[in-house]
Amino acid sequence: LEATLWAEVEPDASRRLIQAAVAAFSEHGYEATTTGEIADRAGLSPAGMYIHYPSKADMLFEIASTAHAAALAAVENAVQRHELPTERVHAFVEASVRWHAEHHVAARVIQSELAALSPEHFGHVRRLRDSYERLLKRDIRRGLADRVFTTDAADIAILAILSLGIDVARWYRAGIHPSPERLGAAYADLALVMLEGAGVRAEVGT
Amino acid sequence: LEATLWAEVEPDASRRLIQAAVAAFSEHGYEATTTGEIADRAGLSPAGMYIHYPSKADMLFEIASTAHAAALAAVENAVQRHELPTERVHAFVEASVRWHAEHHVAARVIQSELAALSPEHFGHVRRLRDSYERLLKRDIRRGLADRVFTTDAADIAILAILSLGIDVARWYRAGIHPSPERLGAAYADLALVMLEGAGVRAEVGT
Repeated sequence: LEATLWAEVEPDASRRLIQAAVAAFSEHGYEATTTGEIADRAGLSPAGMYIHYPSKADMLFEIASTAHAAALAAVENAVQRHELPTERVHAFVEASVRWHAEHHVAARVIQSELAALSPEHFGHVRRLRDSYERLLKRDIRRGLADRVFTTDAADIAILAILSLGIDVARWYRAGIHPSPERLGAAYADLALVMLEGAGVRAEVGT
Repeated sequence: LEATLWAEVEPDASRRLIQAAVAAFSEHGYEATTTGEIADRAGLSPAGMYIHYPSKADMLFEIASTAHAAALAAVENAVQRHELPTERVHAFVEASVRWHAEHHVAARVIQSELAALSPEHFGHVRRLRDSYERLLKRDIRRGLADRVFTTDAADIAILAILSLGIDVARWYRAGIHPSPERLGAAYADLALVMLEGAGVRAEVGT
């Protein structure tokens, strides 16, 4: 499943380089990885690599932009099948959690190396992240306006829902943890509970 | 507040080295940081550093073991003032979220560098993490037995509650986000909602 993320990276040598870079960054971190190691892992000479990616920074940007675009597409596809805010928020969380579980190696590399992107590269990624967050926030605001969501701490619920999805990439291990499907569905239920229940709970819980 | 974490590291030069190491690891990652850079930042010669910490690995272990022990002490102190499972779970989440917000720089370094610890060092840290998780799980199990928690997916709620606390260290920025106190109290409310409400929601949400 990790490999499907790079299916559209062409030609073949570029795709091999990207997969090699993800593996190397995942093992040693971006800063400690050399371009020589990435070329080695991809079975290319440094000159052969240079044709495809002139620098390690270009590979990190390819990885980060491809993965962010894919995560955004996954949640957009999921929500557009629904009308109601509750259904759309449920679909968003289910899709985002599944995505981060299925692609946890790449997602973990990207989360931990965001600070290594150049300002220009980060700007591009930031816009994709903003679109992703806006999609969720818009439906939560609609649900609050319709009074189907009754939380009195929507800002905190939004932080929590976004955090839960992304943090899956840190701790998820295939085979040990619940399947991406079960985790996605269960976390989506929890997101709705948080949006509906927090207002009630605030009185009792403190 | 970050500095309070190292107050008990003695002597003064050791404490300066630990604070320098946290700052350097936070900027470049553990693997790309040199011992020379850490000594420089702490205002010591490499030989002066060597007396206190023979290697970079020893500093990472001091950081990870001190911080894990402090996080465990924070949640233990918080829960022991309460009797009921709902109160104890609320206190656990409130304290753990506050701790991760207050010490987010150190906590973020540690979370992202766990894999860099030697097997022996990791074993020590793993035991502290297990004690931390067990404290939460025991009270959740008690609450389930007493039927004050009615979730039918307790394993998922536990993953979510632990994840929410730790992930604060990744995204938290002082001044931009809610105060550690407000975030802790609100997340604690959300934790109880998740444990009480998920059973109900599972029917409606899917």
